[in-house]
Amino acid sequence: MARYVFGADVGGTTVKIGLLTETGERVDFWEIPTRTEDHGKNIIPDIAESIRAKMKEKSIEDTQVVGAGVGVPGAVNADGLCYQAVNLGWEKVNVVNELHSKLKLPVKAGNDANVAALGEAWKGGGQGYKNMCLVTLGTGVGGGIIVEGNLLSGAKGSGGEIGHIHLVDDEPETCGCGNHGCFEMYASATGAVRIAKRVLAATDEDSVLRGKDFECRDIFDAAKAGDKVAKECAEKYGYYLGKGIAAVASVTNPEIVVLGGGVSKAGDMLFDLLMPSFKKYVFPGCADAKFALAKLGNDAGVFGAARLVIG
Amino acid sequence: MARYVFGADVGGTTVKIGLLTETGERVDFWEIPTRTEDHGKNIIPDIAESIRAKMKEKSIEDTQVVGAGVGVPGAVNADGLCYQAVNLGWEKVNVVNELHSKLKLPVKAGNDANVAALGEAWKGGGQGYKNMCLVTLGTGVGGGIIVEGNLLSGAKGSGGEIGHIHLVDDEPETCGCGNHGCFEMYASATGAVRIAKRVLAATDEDSVLRGKDFECRDIFDAAKAGDKVAKECAEKYGYYLGKGIAAVASVTNPEIVVLGGGVSKAGDMLFDLLMPSFKKYVFPGCADAKFALAKLGNDAGVFGAARLVIG
Repeated sequence: MARYVFGADVGGTTVKIGLLTETGERVDFWEIPTRTEDHGKNIIPDIAESIRAKMKEKSIEDTQVVGAGVGVPGAVNADGLCYQAVNLGWEKVNVVNELHSKLKLPVKAGNDANVAALGEAWKGGGQGYKNMCLVTLGTGVGGGIIVEGNLLSGAKGSGGEIGHIHLVDDEPETCGCGNHGCFEMYASATGAVRIAKRVLAATDEDSVLRGKDFECRDIFDAAKAGDKVAKECAEKYGYYLGKGIAAVASVTNPEIVVLGGGVSKAGDMLFDLLMPSFKKYVFPGCADAKFALAKLGNDAGVFGAARLVIG
Repeated sequence: MARYVFGADVGGTTVKIGLLTETGERVDFWEIPTRTEDHGKNIIPDIAESIRAKMKEKSIEDTQVVGAGVGVPGAVNADGLCYQAVNLGWEKVNVVNELHSKLKLPVKAGNDANVAALGEAWKGGGQGYKNMCLVTLGTGVGGGIIVEGNLLSGAKGSGGEIGHIHLVDDEPETCGCGNHGCFEMYASATGAVRIAKRVLAATDEDSVLRGKDFECRDIFDAAKAGDKVAKECAEKYGYYLGKGIAAVASVTNPEIVVLGGGVSKAGDMLFDLLMPSFKKYVFPGCADAKFALAKLGNDAGVFGAARLVIG
């Protein structure tokens, strides 16, 4: 008899849920709204109800379900306690206990970025590797670290929060975390724009970026099209990206580093851009890490949440 | 019937071996010479012979022994393969297979600094914590990271090699690893002396350190005794120590950071010295890590090697 697993990736507006076989084959993926009102008290019951409805629809018995995994946008410790998830209105919610009490099936929970790393390690860019780092280059920089196939969650679920490694000493602007010079101030999509504005301000050279309200993707598109200033911006971006990854790799010695998030759509050019500073700053014993792009896109969290519960 | 475990910590001149109960009670500790001639081919057979002799002496049967763990001064992967151990003359030695073939008991192996971390987590400064970082402040800076009670060894056994995190951009001197500005260039005992020499060169102020061929301990002793320049040296040392630990903690989110190695003999004053920059540079979600001093001294490796095999 086939065995199934559910994965739920809780975002600020929707919860992505997936029904997969226990070997990671996609059976059905769908979304429900995230009801954040009343401190998000409906979110977990809604997930339980949606999973139960899907089991009924597909005539899946309890005994056929390994369990349900959940990724949430906040720090989660090894017991499933979410300390805070601002976007959900949560403060100290034990995701595992609450979902289990509704669903009556085995439950696991983790931070969404960490869980996405587990997804990419299972069925994405890191498939086949037991020691992996996912570096998610989005509005901020997140990540997840897989050690011998398991998530590094840390004491309070802040393991793999690599966006706030200190990278630059003389940064005048303040990071969202309150510090100065964090990795994500340069390697995020907003960081790429910050770098480009500084490069543009420091030169008179003409560029398609000048005078426009450009986004991260415009920088890489212009660089690919040969715009000289945009190329310099992309190189600077790569310098910081490589330097930050070097710090993570020197601590965790991954076999492979997987780049995900919106910026990773720039593609293979990122590897050429980051490699000089990665090689310069990484501990030589950790320098032979492979690099790859994430493959699962927005589904990584669902795959990873499902994988959590398989253990 | 009592159950026992052996731990062996292989150094360049001696192998420290311990016989412990499986709950970590010390039964007997002794040393044998490390025979590094002929590419160190006798080292593993010597350990096997010494363990067998001890079992005979104490009338311990094979069935009473959980196994033997070994820490070696080189990178070791999860299968027990040591890629290189320069001080032993080793190149690609599978410690687990070789010792098992002689000893006929379960064997595990790891890097000596990592294994020491496991020892401190088991019976030393990190006892009772499942997520710990050991920072060993000796001639260099080593370390070990414990995640949910297990060692983070990394792809090729270089996990926890925190001494080579990049910390300073404009360092003119070269680190032993070939890079510039590594953590251990400042936070090791030799780093403390490097910092002090620079402080002395930049001021005319009198100090008991001036004109002397001082060592690391002299700096901290003088600082404790009120020497103003030595105090400044100690503060600078603490700045770098805190900054480097912040990088490690931001990636791994430990419950506790344990300081070991020769420099840690400076004692509790180190915590006051490192705390301002630790708090400044660490990701806020990882800022409440506890700090403690290592407790097992040179025996940490033996305890940790024994703990390895208990699993």
